[in-house]
This record gives sequence, C-alpha cells and structure tokens, in this order.
Amino acid sequence: MSGDADRRENGADNEEQIITPWEVSGKDGGKIDYDKLIDQFGCQKLDSSLVDRVEKLTGVPAHPFLRRGVFFAHREFDKILEAYEKGEKFYLYTGRGPSSEALHLGHLVPFMFTKYLQDVFQVPLVIQLTDDEKCMWKNLTVEESQRLARENAKDIIACGFDITKTFIFSDFNYVGGAFYQNMVRIAKCVTLNQVRGIFGFVGEDHIGKVSFPPVQAAPSFPTSFPHIFGKRKDTRCLIPCAIDQDPYFRMTRDVAPRLGYHKPALIESLFFPALQGESGKMSASDPNSAIYVTDSAKDIKNKIMKYAFSGGRDTVENHRKYGANLEVDVPVKYLSFFLENDAELANIKQEYGAGRMLTGEVKKRLIDVLSSMVERHRKARAAVTEEMVDAFMAIRPLNILG
Amino acid sequence: MSGDADRRENGADNEEQIITPWEVSGKDGGKIDYDKLIDQFGCQKLDSSLVDRVEKLTGVPAHPFLRRGVFFAHREFDKILEAYEKGEKFYLYTGRGPSSEALHLGHLVPFMFTKYLQDVFQVPLVIQLTDDEKCMWKNLTVEESQRLARENAKDIIACGFDITKTFIFSDFNYVGGAFYQNMVRIAKCVTLNQVRGIFGFVGEDHIGKVSFPPVQAAPSFPTSFPHIFGKRKDTRCLIPCAIDQDPYFRMTRDVAPRLGYHKPALIESLFFPALQGESGKMSASDPNSAIYVTDSAKDIKNKIMKYAFSGGRDTVENHRKYGANLEVDVPVKYLSFFLENDAELANIKQEYGAGRMLTGEVKKRLIDVLSSMVERHRKARAAVTEEMVDAFMAIRPLNILG
Repeated sequence: MSGDADRRENGADNEEQIITPWEVSGKDGGKIDYDKLIDQFGCQKLDSSLVDRVEKLTGVPAHPFLRRGVFFAHREFDKILEAYEKGEKFYLYTGRGPSSEALHLGHLVPFMFTKYLQDVFQVPLVIQLTDDEKCMWKNLTVEESQRLARENAKDIIACGFDITKTFIFSDFNYVGGAFYQNMVRIAKCVTLNQVRGIFGFVGEDHIGKVSFPPVQAAPSFPTSFPHIFGKRKDTRCLIPCAIDQDPYFRMTRDVAPRLGYHKPALIESLFFPALQGESGKMSASDPNSAIYVTDSAKDIKNKIMKYAFSGGRDTVENHRKYGANLEVDVPVKYLSFFLENDAELANIKQEYGAGRMLTGEVKKRLIDVLSSMVERHRKARAAVTEEMVDAFMAIRPLNILG
Repeated sequence: MSGDADRRENGADNEEQIITPWEVSGKDGGKIDYDKLIDQFGCQKLDSSLVDRVEKLTGVPAHPFLRRGVFFAHREFDKILEAYEKGEKFYLYTGRGPSSEALHLGHLVPFMFTKYLQDVFQVPLVIQLTDDEKCMWKNLTVEESQRLARENAKDIIACGFDITKTFIFSDFNYVGGAFYQNMVRIAKCVTLNQVRGIFGFVGEDHIGKVSFPPVQAAPSFPTSFPHIFGKRKDTRCLIPCAIDQDPYFRMTRDVAPRLGYHKPALIESLFFPALQGESGKMSASDPNSAIYVTDSAKDIKNKIMKYAFSGGRDTVENHRKYGANLEVDVPVKYLSFFLENDAELANIKQEYGAGRMLTGEVKKRLIDVLSSMVERHRKARAAVTEEMVDAFMAIRPLNILG
C-alpha cells in the first residue's frame, strides 16, 4: 500500500483528475472532486443511514471519521453489517507502504479508524507492510525497506491494536506458502491488458510493478492466513483504506468470485490534506507539507503558524466583515479530523466562518490538539519494544471468536 | 522449467524457427537448425577441446551426452572450468516443470547429465520444481501442481543424486524469504518491454506469466539458498538444461552483474526427438510420441516397432543397396543418447548405414537398451519413500566442501 502521493512528472495539471495508488491529482491541478471519484470508481457514498446502523449495531457513537465523512465511500460495507447482524464475524485488512521512517498524520488516519473498527466489532485484523512494493517503486534496497517496515510497525502498534487479534506482516518476511499460492491464483485471473488499464503500467515499467497487484490482493482472502482462518474460504474481509487504493481492490473484487471467495468490502477515506492546502495528499519530498509523528511541539507550532493554509481574509477588517473561507482553510480541516468534541468543532466553524474568531486563535487550538496527540503517540511508541514487534509479527493463531 | 513443447496453435509452420520455453518449431515445421540457434541466441558451441578439458580435470571419460554432442552449446562453461581449476567450487542448478505424472526419456536427459556433473565435480545441486509455472500455464490447480511436483521429485531422486549435496524444492513450498527478496531484486531490473521481447508475452496473457521469469532466475544466485550458501554472493552457478530454457537465463545473465553476482553459466542440450521424428520435442498430448518411464517392456516394444521413424529403405533390396538414412532414423538417434558402448554404437551406425543391418535389428537392440534402462529406473523409483522425498526437500545445510 502507498501512503503518499508520488506524482509522476507529467502527472500534474491533467485535464481530468487522476487517482491511482501512486498518483493523486485533481483536474487542472485543483481539488479532488470526490463525488466524481465515486462515479469514476463505481463505489457507493457512505450515507448517514449506514452510520446510524453502525451506531445501533455497536451501541457506541460512531468514530468522528465516520460521522464527519472522512470515510466517505464504500463497497458493500452494508453487506458486512448485514452478515454481522446475523452473527457472522468478518476480518479487517489494512496496510502501509513503508517508504519513510516517520509517519505523518495522514498515515495515522486509516490505523486510527481501523483500531476503532476492531474495538467495536471485536474482529481479527491483518496489517500488510508492503516493503516489497516500496523496494520496487522507491528504489530502496531490500534491507532498507525491511528496516522501514519494522520501524513503521512500531508506529502502528502504538495506535493501540489488540495483540490477541492483530497480525502484522511484511511481504519480504511473509510471502510464501498459502499466501504465494493465492498470489498465483489471483495472477492467473488478471491479464496484462487489465493491469495496464487499472494501474496505467507502461512497457518501460519493470515487471516487479506488474507482479505486485496480486501481493496486495492476497490478504483479502482468508486462506492467505491459514494460521488464523485455517482452510475457511467464507470469512468476509473489510478493508479500511484511503480511496487511492481502490484500484487494487476493484481488481481483487473482480477475481474473488472466480476463486470462490466473497468480494472484499471496502470503507474508503478522503485524502488527508497537505498543510499548504487541499489539492491532493502530502508529499514525502517536502517535510514542511505535513506534520510528522516525530515532530516536536516546537516543530508543530512552527509548521502550523508558517505553512497551514488559512481561509482567513487579508485584513482583520475584511475578516470580521466576511468571515473565513472554511472550504479552503487547512486548520479547520485538520480540526475536523482530530478535534473529538463535536460541539467545540461546530462552534469554531461558526465563529471562524462568521469572522468572530481569527486564524491565529484557530491555529492555536489546532497546535494544542496536535501537540497532545503527537505527544501521546510518541509516548506510546517509545513503549513499543522489539519483543512486542516480534509478538505482533509472529505467525500464530489469533483470537477470532470475540 | 518446461519439459515439453507446447506449440501454440499458430506456432507450427513458421517461416523462421521459433524456440521459447513453451514453443519449439523448426522453420516451415521442419528440423531445428541448431547451428542457427546458437547464432540466434548468442551462445557458444561446446567443442571437443572443452570436452577434453573436462576429462582431464575430472580424470574420467566424459559422459556420452558430452562426447556425442547431446549437450552441444554453452555460455561460459569454460569460465566454470577455469575457476574449478583454481580450486573454486561452483553449484549446479536444474529444474523441471511438473506438468505430468510420468516423465518421458527426454525429461531424464538433463537429470542424467546433472548427476554425472555432480559425481565428477562433487558439487552441490539445487533442483527447482516449477509447480507455480505449470499451475499458471497448464491451468492445473495449485494442489494438482503440487502433487505432480512431488511425484516428479521421486523420479528425479531415482536418478541417483547425492542427498548430502542435493536440495530439491517446489516453488509453492519454497518461494519466500531470501528467495522472494531475490525475485523482487531481479524483477526491478527487467522491463515489461524486455520480457515481451524475450518471451513473446502479449497483452492477453495473464500477469502470472509476466511475474514468473524472476522465479526461474532466482536460483541462479547463491543467496536464494541461505541454508546452503549463507550470505556468499560469489559462488558460481552452472545450469544444465535443454536449450529452450536459454531465454530465462539470457535475462538472468543480463541482470546478474547489476546485482553483484557472477552470470550463471549454462550447458545446453539438443531436444530429445519424438518417436515420429526430429522436428521438435515430444508432445504431452500424444502418448505414442514418447517412451515414458512408466511404460512396460511390452509398451516400449510396441511403441518402437510401430512408431519409431525409420531411416531404412522401402524394400530390403533398396536397403541393402543404399543403406539406412541415419540423419532421420529415430532408433539410431535414441541409441546415440542411451547406448553407452561407443564401439557398439559406431558399429551399428556403420552396418546400418551401409545396409548390412536392417531396421528390425536396430530396433531390437534399442528395445533391449530402453527396456533395461526403464526397468532400472522403475526399480529405483519404487525404492524412493515419502521420507526420502521429505529429506531431499528439507531446508537444511548441504555438504558443499567436497
């Protein structure tokens, strides 16, 4: 899986928006049109009736990411709920492409949400670290990709997953056996023309790229984890991910019935905006485009004060008169992700939008929220030992009954 | 690896000869022009000076396959000998694509020769069973490919390999870890355009085919077997195989120096002719085109009497007058592979070619030779237990010192 948008040289300023696992760019380099994306990809909008259903089923308020539309699209999430209502368990699958040592806040989004799903549904979870993908796409050595995978695993564990229900694996360590057999079964069902259409591969691409989609598809099928699911083929899979990963799972869903599996269901998020504004995801090549979990309180303050794009007006006078443009304001967007208190968020939006609150005040609140969140993460990560990493990554049975 | 020629529907009657791992057809459907093939592929002819050098180095007469030109081409076999002369050990790598339960005589050729090489050079050997390849190309299930791989392993073991120096593995069981890491390293160095050029893949081919060449390439590098070679990167590899496998190893040789390995050396054989004559290899779809190691003495007699293409003349009178055409005579070709006594072979060729021996007499001698060879194989295979298969396929250190 890929966590950052690596725009190809000729990727920007397309006439149409382009969303692939390696390229995210809006029409004419502008904002992503998510409604259009749902149409393009053929997924469903995640509407409030589904959110209500989740709350009813779990007996707890929905996660802010769910009730605020951060996870805004899905494929057959309703079927997962329907089966769950009938007493049928499913499993969760998410992942990360370990291309960098430190995660930024956007990287945490799927993991924070997946932890919520694991908690409320009490289901097993597999987390794939695609060190092979990053070795192939990023020109990292095998050893460096493996090192980054293990470092990233610590950040993931720090999100609080239940070790009795969570299996973290890196492809370089885990590919083989039942997993490789599923890779081959999947690869047999997909033609070269199809992957060219889905992923945009060209003749100059190396064959590692063409070989990779089955690696990311395989965890969607329970038999890829015989130590967890035995030989069961009928366990359903739910994949929380950013919507740029949809092409992999469109391919997987196409293949699933031919191999005798349920199609994996998806619950898909918006991209987390860069500090500079929302025209894509964040760029790994510009450290000032994102807040990292390794940033100090001072870094966070500096970055937000200096780089977070403001929807405030050019003068205080105009601001008081017209109010902030919340559509483009990054501090408000970040608060919409991470400020848990709904009433406070609504109040900020109202006051800021009406010009009664200034950008500086909003940024100050954001700095507080992110500093304490990052500090909490830093402490949790510092408590993750090598032994805990080994334990999460051990090939072992999980508690799949509840 | 593929052991039989699976001609594509439009493969026959090409204007030029086509030799790929899946298609073997001579120009206009006729005989293979091996000299031309050496030119096309860019390998070297294995001349008598190299054979002499092997005899001198090993202190024993060269194998009939070597002194009679069955193994007729090579790539850097001279470098292997040069290094060996300096006291540097190498390892052998060969393989089989397990597409059928029973092997035919052509399948035995590389294994008989590899056993000779192992015996005289006292070097370790890895044998790859490409059950993944056959699952993908032959539309076999994973389970059936695995079953065939294990059955074929018994026939291979029956060829007499030294268990202290031989590791047999199937891809479905062994791909992973260091081996998978090398697959990825190799895949990164080869473009889609290159494999299309080398193997003739087209857009309608499934991506499993595109993913496979690195699987067959990986055993050429010693680090794919850390239990045998540890982390050593400088151990040379010699690959005995039929020449249709050359495309895989041309690709591998191209990649090797970029990854810090020696290019694998090759020693390549002619195709074993079908009973009906020499215009390619044998067809798995026609059981009467080949002698199988499971054939009874009666089967062998029937097949040779009925189907072995004769170079004898239409009448006894003409035969006595003109002699047999040894160029097209299949019984003589088969004897050239399997009759060990050089003097007797020379005598048969002389007498038969002069018309003093009749086809029936030559066929009778061939029936004797093959019946006893197949009977010997049958007994050896019957003695191979499941435990022996497990032992040969166990991931373990080998005796690599002598």
